[in-house]
Amino acid sequence: MRISRTDAEALDAADPLAPLRDRFVVPPGRIYLDGNSLGLVSVDVRDGVAALLGDWGKRAVEAWDDWIELPTRIGDRLAASLLGARSGEVLVADSVTVNLYKLAHAAADHRPGPIVTDAGNFPTDRYVLEGVARQRGREYVEASSVEAAVEGASGGVLCLAHVDYRYGRLLDLPAITGATDALVIWDLSHSAGAVEVDLASADLAVGCTYKYLNAGPGAPAFLYVRRELQAEMRSPIQGWFGRRDQFGMEPGYDPVDGIGRFAAGTPSIPGLAALDATLDVIELAGISRIAAKSRTVTDFGLSLADAWLAPLGFEAVSPRSAAERGAHLALRHEAAMPICRALLERAGVVTDFRQPDVLRAGLSPLTTRYVDAWDGFDRLRSLVASGAHLAQEAAPRRVT
Amino acid sequence: MRISRTDAEALDAADPLAPLRDRFVVPPGRIYLDGNSLGLVSVDVRDGVAALLGDWGKRAVEAWDDWIELPTRIGDRLAASLLGARSGEVLVADSVTVNLYKLAHAAADHRPGPIVTDAGNFPTDRYVLEGVARQRGREYVEASSVEAAVEGASGGVLCLAHVDYRYGRLLDLPAITGATDALVIWDLSHSAGAVEVDLASADLAVGCTYKYLNAGPGAPAFLYVRRELQAEMRSPIQGWFGRRDQFGMEPGYDPVDGIGRFAAGTPSIPGLAALDATLDVIELAGISRIAAKSRTVTDFGLSLADAWLAPLGFEAVSPRSAAERGAHLALRHEAAMPICRALLERAGVVTDFRQPDVLRAGLSPLTTRYVDAWDGFDRLRSLVASGAHLAQEAAPRRVT
Repeated sequence: MRISRTDAEALDAADPLAPLRDRFVVPPGRIYLDGNSLGLVSVDVRDGVAALLGDWGKRAVEAWDDWIELPTRIGDRLAASLLGARSGEVLVADSVTVNLYKLAHAAADHRPGPIVTDAGNFPTDRYVLEGVARQRGREYVEASSVEAAVEGASGGVLCLAHVDYRYGRLLDLPAITGATDALVIWDLSHSAGAVEVDLASADLAVGCTYKYLNAGPGAPAFLYVRRELQAEMRSPIQGWFGRRDQFGMEPGYDPVDGIGRFAAGTPSIPGLAALDATLDVIELAGISRIAAKSRTVTDFGLSLADAWLAPLGFEAVSPRSAAERGAHLALRHEAAMPICRALLERAGVVTDFRQPDVLRAGLSPLTTRYVDAWDGFDRLRSLVASGAHLAQEAAPRRVT
Repeated sequence: MRISRTDAEALDAADPLAPLRDRFVVPPGRIYLDGNSLGLVSVDVRDGVAALLGDWGKRAVEAWDDWIELPTRIGDRLAASLLGARSGEVLVADSVTVNLYKLAHAAADHRPGPIVTDAGNFPTDRYVLEGVARQRGREYVEASSVEAAVEGASGGVLCLAHVDYRYGRLLDLPAITGATDALVIWDLSHSAGAVEVDLASADLAVGCTYKYLNAGPGAPAFLYVRRELQAEMRSPIQGWFGRRDQFGMEPGYDPVDGIGRFAAGTPSIPGLAALDATLDVIELAGISRIAAKSRTVTDFGLSLADAWLAPLGFEAVSPRSAAERGAHLALRHEAAMPICRALLERAGVVTDFRQPDVLRAGLSPLTTRYVDAWDGFDRLRSLVASGAHLAQEAAPRRVT
């Protein structure tokens, strides 16, 4: 099958999300296939942050009357627009790492069994869980597969990535939640904003807003606790933003009812403003259209990989079925690291590398055109066919 | 003694910091005496954040090559410019609450004794310490005074505010650190950027950047760990940003050498950019001039309080000696709450209220003119003399 650039152009012309791409700033001279690592800035976010700085100037501390609501108000927006959760179940706060720490700690106090994840889960998740297990005197198990992790977590706490960061495998969240008696913490960092998320059956979750939600580097993360569980769960980090009658400043910690008990210190207001602004774009697109685009653009990318890259020694190791896949593709190649560097430096295509041998191409649905996938993969095949990557210096690892 | 507005104008004319005030945005129609709660935005910060958003647009994920250094690079700036600490001892990260949690946890693993603070310490500190003590199986003691806390902390962990949030009392940090065998965690939230801080003798500290450092609402906080202690201390929150060879993504947590081991998740880059930009202004001013202004402007405010407010039932309860005082003044009055509200709503003067009976007037050295102190206190005396505050509705508590 021959896939021409004209085919890609036709797909873009028919893409209902295409007009929204104009709101994003694409790095000049680059084909950006790394929105799974850092999403692009939109004019909406730029304007939203500028407006926040203006508000700070005009109202200073008095603006806190409104700012104080942002972590739960924007949490409710995430819940309704993206996560299939109810009002009062999502809080925007801190980082994924800190939020997972809070929920894993609370979950360990709730379930006596082991704390379990799989070895393919994202590093910070594994490190946090290992630490919590040691602190709470629980066994920590890093299973060799998701299936083995589910098996081994009975009676304990299970943490799984909804979409895995390396291969892009998308798990069946409701099915796994329903099949285990473990308390499951879902990490939605690589799924929220890329695929449909349905937390209706879920107990606990955390997620990131700087990838597919385009809220900016280090933008605040979110956490989800099922409403019926909230009263039984306590954050280990007893901060004033989670305390009843916060400004009473009374002795003793007494957490608020509801999701606010998982707040700790003062939230980043510019970060919340950025998230609020990016949700304007995402709600305009709608997660069902975003998820549909994710499936078709990754299908398109896989077709290109089959046609062009397999003959050059690449193995596309992401799931073949779009229903089991997030919005990035993993391409295994023994020279993936120098290829990734050379692709950036010699061909202007931004992807990233994951140990030991995976080149990731992120096809973030809102910001990636079909022609971007076509151009990016075309340059990749030319590069590898020419052997130019063989001359690539081993460069210091870029942060991704 | 009669103090005229002309006296205030003369003091402003002689103030070497006066020209820098033009870089800050004062809320229109307000006299702002609340920089101890939220510092004002400067054009430097506004431009710094705009530049960061531009950088994100132009370079996207590739900008992480530079961003990754910000938490330690700006930590070093804080160390050198404001804290009397050495390079490699300060990290910018998370919130004060989360940073105190990390250090208190690590300190408790280091010292077997009780975890002690005083009942006048800031609420989030007390709540965090109570939680850490319970988790680590330590006794938690909330002493009735700083002196009793120092007494009771022997062999354990002691947490003290360098400047207390309510009365503005400034403790002798080196003397207390030298006099106790407890591991002391200093909270510099109400001192950093207002008074001189000398951490040379200190072991551990945390602090805030959105008060006297003017880095914005929820801007990232900092933490300090004495170099010689770092290897013995472990953060309870084992995040990927604190791990050796972060992007190796290997199994098992292995913290980096140095202060970076207290990093957790992805830091807020816009927050770091704001802090970097505000430090340009603060370094231009210099902490010795800032601290000198803090002493003289609070002296001036106390003179006004003695002359005008004492006869109206106010008691100035901040230390009389400038050497023992931060940059805010506590005025006790039985009707402090309605006075604070009426002063804002009827006279446009922004102060804040602290339970049970304290009106705080923040005289943030960089952004408060002597005429602001004069005008604010003049309106306060007129308001209370007129009895207008007696008609003040009990309004919902403003966040401060």
